[in-house]
Amino acid sequence: MATPDSSTITLADYLFTRLQQLGVKSLFGVPGDYNLKLLDYVDPSGLHWVGTCNELNAAYAADGYARMAGMSAIITTFGVGELSAVNGIAGAYAERAPVVHIVGTPPRPAQESRSLVHHTFADGEYRRFAAMHAHVTVAQTNLNDPRTVPEQIDTVLQQALIHSRPVYIEVPDDMPGVLVSAANLTSPIRRPPAPTTKHESTVLSRIADRIYHAKQPLILVDGESRAMGILDEINTLLRKTAWPTFTTVSGKGLVDEHQPYVYGNYAGPLGNPDHKTYFDQADLILEFGSHPTDTNTLGFQTLPNPATSITFTDKAVRIGDETYRDFSPAIVTRLVQTLDFDRISQPANPPPKTVVPNESLPPTGRITQKHFYRRVNSLFQPGDVVLTETGTASYGGRDFTLPTGTRLFGAITWLSIGYMLPATLGAALAQRERNPDKPTRAVLFIGDGSLQMTVQELSTILVQKLDVVIFLINNDGYTIERAIHGRKQAYNDVARWRHSLAADFFGAAEGHGAKNSFQANTWAELDEVLQREEIQNGKGLRWVEVFMEKEDVEGLLKVIMEKQIAAETA
Amino acid sequence: MATPDSSTITLADYLFTRLQQLGVKSLFGVPGDYNLKLLDYVDPSGLHWVGTCNELNAAYAADGYARMAGMSAIITTFGVGELSAVNGIAGAYAERAPVVHIVGTPPRPAQESRSLVHHTFADGEYRRFAAMHAHVTVAQTNLNDPRTVPEQIDTVLQQALIHSRPVYIEVPDDMPGVLVSAANLTSPIRRPPAPTTKHESTVLSRIADRIYHAKQPLILVDGESRAMGILDEINTLLRKTAWPTFTTVSGKGLVDEHQPYVYGNYAGPLGNPDHKTYFDQADLILEFGSHPTDTNTLGFQTLPNPATSITFTDKAVRIGDETYRDFSPAIVTRLVQTLDFDRISQPANPPPKTVVPNESLPPTGRITQKHFYRRVNSLFQPGDVVLTETGTASYGGRDFTLPTGTRLFGAITWLSIGYMLPATLGAALAQRERNPDKPTRAVLFIGDGSLQMTVQELSTILVQKLDVVIFLINNDGYTIERAIHGRKQAYNDVARWRHSLAADFFGAAEGHGAKNSFQANTWAELDEVLQREEIQNGKGLRWVEVFMEKEDVEGLLKVIMEKQIAAETA
Repeated sequence: MATPDSSTITLADYLFTRLQQLGVKSLFGVPGDYNLKLLDYVDPSGLHWVGTCNELNAAYAADGYARMAGMSAIITTFGVGELSAVNGIAGAYAERAPVVHIVGTPPRPAQESRSLVHHTFADGEYRRFAAMHAHVTVAQTNLNDPRTVPEQIDTVLQQALIHSRPVYIEVPDDMPGVLVSAANLTSPIRRPPAPTTKHESTVLSRIADRIYHAKQPLILVDGESRAMGILDEINTLLRKTAWPTFTTVSGKGLVDEHQPYVYGNYAGPLGNPDHKTYFDQADLILEFGSHPTDTNTLGFQTLPNPATSITFTDKAVRIGDETYRDFSPAIVTRLVQTLDFDRISQPANPPPKTVVPNESLPPTGRITQKHFYRRVNSLFQPGDVVLTETGTASYGGRDFTLPTGTRLFGAITWLSIGYMLPATLGAALAQRERNPDKPTRAVLFIGDGSLQMTVQELSTILVQKLDVVIFLINNDGYTIERAIHGRKQAYNDVARWRHSLAADFFGAAEGHGAKNSFQANTWAELDEVLQREEIQNGKGLRWVEVFMEKEDVEGLLKVIMEKQIAAETA
Repeated sequence: MATPDSSTITLADYLFTRLQQLGVKSLFGVPGDYNLKLLDYVDPSGLHWVGTCNELNAAYAADGYARMAGMSAIITTFGVGELSAVNGIAGAYAERAPVVHIVGTPPRPAQESRSLVHHTFADGEYRRFAAMHAHVTVAQTNLNDPRTVPEQIDTVLQQALIHSRPVYIEVPDDMPGVLVSAANLTSPIRRPPAPTTKHESTVLSRIADRIYHAKQPLILVDGESRAMGILDEINTLLRKTAWPTFTTVSGKGLVDEHQPYVYGNYAGPLGNPDHKTYFDQADLILEFGSHPTDTNTLGFQTLPNPATSITFTDKAVRIGDETYRDFSPAIVTRLVQTLDFDRISQPANPPPKTVVPNESLPPTGRITQKHFYRRVNSLFQPGDVVLTETGTASYGGRDFTLPTGTRLFGAITWLSIGYMLPATLGAALAQRERNPDKPTRAVLFIGDGSLQMTVQELSTILVQKLDVVIFLINNDGYTIERAIHGRKQAYNDVARWRHSLAADFFGAAEGHGAKNSFQANTWAELDEVLQREEIQNGKGLRWVEVFMEKEDVEGLLKVIMEKQIAAETA
C-alpha cells in the first residue's frame, strides 16, 4: 500500500495539478451529492471555483474559457448534473474546445453492489451516462483504481489537447482522497511530437513549389486554425507574404484585420464582387483550419475550389485531389520555417479592399441591422473579447472591423442558442486571468430569444465582478427563425420581459443596475448611449437594450426571408 | 403513390391526432431550424403550443404534465435542442412519466448525403443523438419512410403507455407534410390486454389465502402505483378492507389521507415508534408499486420485510421470495374483483394515528423548517397540485396532510434540482385542462438554489396565466448539500438575488408583481401573508419569499448533518 510521502498525492490533487499545468485557473460547475468530497480539494489546490446557476451554463462557460485559455474543466454530479451539461459538451466537440468534464459518481461500493441509489434509474445500471458521453467526447476514463489513476488522467488530458475536444472523467465519491503516485507530475502533458511521415519532404517541396509559382494567390483562414494551434505560424506567413487574406465566418478575429493584406470575411456571391472574382480566378488558395459546414460557408457558397487549393486540417494536408494523412499541424510550422520568402511574388492585381461608405443615419430613425454593427464598432478596444450570439447578432458581427488583439466569438456550426451568455462569463474570466495587470472587457451582442435560454448566468457575471457590456437586441422573438420559416407564426414569439430590471433582479450592487442600464430606439439614442462614460470606461455589468424591427434581417438571412415572402405571395 | 383522399393524412396530423387520442392537449418545446415545418401543424391540429424558454425546461414541464394527464410531448430540434432536453427525459424514465420526445431532424437528402450541416459535428454522422436517447427512452423510431410511419408511431406510443416512460421520435424536416395511411386512427392505442399466465389462478388464490388469514396486515402504497394505473383499484381495496395503510415518500398524495385507515408517510426509525412496531410485526404487507431506492426509503430504512410481503410491481408479483414474472398490473384489478371481502378480518390492535400537537410559535420568532410546512397546510384546497422541490422543501412536504383530491409532487429518485418549477408549469396546465370549469391552483415550495436553475420558466407560467403560488425558501444556498457535506463550504453558496422583482422582470402585467409579492421572516409575518386575499383566492402568479436559517434542516437531513458536525468536532 502506498504511504503518504512525497511520491504520492491524492487523486484530487493529482487531477487539479495536471489541469493547472495545462493553463486552467478556474473550474466551473454545480455541487451535487456525489461530487462534494471532490469539491473540498478545489480551493486548497489554488483553483478558483465558479459555481454557475446550472450545469448547461457551466459547460457553456467552460467552452468559452477553453477557447481563450487552451483548456478548461467543469465538475458535475452523476446523472442529473452531467446530462444537463451534455449539450454544452457536444458543442465543445463540434467546434473544438478542450473541456474536461469531471463527474462525481456514486462511491465504488454502491456501484459494485448495484445499489438502487438516487440519480440512477433504480435498476442497478451505472454505465448508461458514461456511454452517452462517449458520443460527445474524444476520450473517457473512470478513476476507480488508484494503481492506474495517473496514467488514466494523463491519457485523456493529452487526448483533449491533441484534438482540442472534450473528454470525460468519472471520479467515484470515495476516490478523491485516495493516494496515487505523483511521479508523472514532473513531466508536463504535451501534444506528442509531430510524426514524421515518409511523405513529409515530398509534400513540403510540392507545397513550396506551388507557392513559388503562384501568380494570383490568396490565403483563407478558417476557424479550426485556432484549435490546431497554428495562429502564430499563420500570422508569420501573412506578414512575410503579404498575400491577400480572407477569413471564413469562424476564422474572423483570428488574424489582425488592420493589416493591409487582410480583406476580412469572404462572403462569396453576397459580398464584394471584386473579391469573388479574385477568389474564383486564384491559382493558389492556401486554406488553413478548414471547417466546411453550411453555416460557416454561407450554405456551401464560399468553399474554395479544391483544384487550386492546398488545405491544412487537423490531421491531413490536401493538395488538389490528393490527401496526405497523418500530418499534424506541425507541418505548418515546418513550412513557414523552410520557405524561401524571397522567391514569393505578389499578385499583379490584388482586389481593392471594401470601403464602407459612412452613411448618415436619421437621428430619429429606428435602429437597423444593416447599420447597427458598424455603428458600435468604434466602441471596441484592443484586448476586448467580442461575442455575437447565434441569430442576427452573429450575422451582424461579420461587419465588425476588430482592433488588433481582439477576439471574436460567433456562431459557427453547433449554434445552440443560449450558449453565448455563459460563454461570455468563461471567456471574460479567462481573458482577465491572462491579463491580470490591465483592464479587460467583454462585449456581448445577444437577441431577446437567446437571452431567455440562459439568462441566470448574468448572476455569475455579477458575482465574478467581470467587466461586460451587453447589447440586447430586442426584436420581439426568434428573428433568425422567422427568416428561415414561420415569419408570422406565433411559435417564433417569446415573452416580453422588463429587461431593464435584469441587473437588479440578478443581484447587482445597490444602485448599479439603474446607473448602468440603457435603452435605445433610435440612432440618436444609440449614439448618446455609446458616448456615455459608463459604457466607454465603466466597470462591471452594463446593459444596453436596443430595439429593432422583428423582421429586420440582413445578408443571407435577408435572401432566405425574401424567398419565403415570394413563396407566400406566389 | 398515396392520394390525398380520406384514407390518407399528413404525417404531422397523424402524430398529433394520436397524441390527442391519448389525452395530450398541449405541446411543449422550442422552435429550431429543423422543426419549424412540423410546428406549422400544431395549432391547426387543435393542440396548444407552449413555447418554453429552453428545452430542458420543456422536458421538465412535459414530465409534470404527463404525471397529471397520462401522456405528454415535447418538440425540439436536432442536436442542440434534443441534448438540452435529455436530462429531463432521463428523469421521466427514472420516475415513470410517459413523455414523447419528438425531434425535428435535418431533411432526408441532407442525412443521406452526409451533408455537413449545422447542429452536427461536421463529420456526416447523423445517428449519434438518437443513440444517446436510446439510453433514456423505452422505444425509438425514425419517421423516414411514409409506408411504415403509422405503425412506427403506434408502436412507440404504445411502449410509452405500457411502461409509463419516455419514447423518442425523429421527424426529418421534409416529412411533416408527407401523406401516410390514416387507417389505424380508428383504433385507439391501448395498453395490451393482460397476458394470462399459467400461474394466474394459483397466484391469485395464494394471495387471497394470505389476505384471509392475516392478523396484523398493512397496505404500503409506493410511487409506481401511479404509473401502473392501479390507483382506483388500490382505493377500492383500502375502502373495502380499511386496513392500516402507509405511503412511501413517492406514494404520498396517491391515496386519500383523510380516511381513518390512512396513516400517511411511513418514516421507519425516524417516525412514530408505534407505527414502526406495527410495521415490523406485521404478518402481511401488501405492497403496491414498489420503488425501493435510497431516497424513497430513508436510505433503505423503510423497506418492508420480504418474508411477510406480497409486492405488486409493473411486471411481476412477488410473494415472499418467489417472483412470478409477466404479471401486468391487471392482476391487481382481478384481485380486487375476486376477493371475498367478508372473509377479511381487522387487526386486533391497529396503531394509533400520529397526533401533531398544535404548538404555539413565537410571533417574532424566525420561521423554522420544523413547523413551517404544517403551518401552511391550512392553505391547501381540494384539487390543488402541491409541488415540493428536491431539498428541504421536499422533506418538509412529507408533513403535509393533503385535502382529498390533491396531488403531491415530491423528490423521489432522479432529484434533478430545477425540475420542480417547470414541472409546476406542466402540472398546473394539465390540471386546468382536466378541470376547465372550476378554478385549479398549483402551490410550489422551492429553495433559492433550485430556483436559479430554471427560473426563467416563471415567464411561461405568466404567459399561460396559470394560478400558481410559490413559496421561495430563501436559506442562502444549497442547504440540502450542506447537510450532506460541506456545511460551511463556499461551494454550497449561491448568489443573492432580489427575488421580489421576479414577477416584474419576467413580464407580469403592470402592477401585478408589486401586489402579489410578499416576504416573511417571522411566524407573525407568515400568518399575515397566509391570510391575505391574494394568497387565499387570488389569480395568476403569487410569490412568497420565506427566510430561514441556512443550516436549518429536519428529519433525515438533520441526522446526517449532526453526523457531519460530530465528525468535525471529533
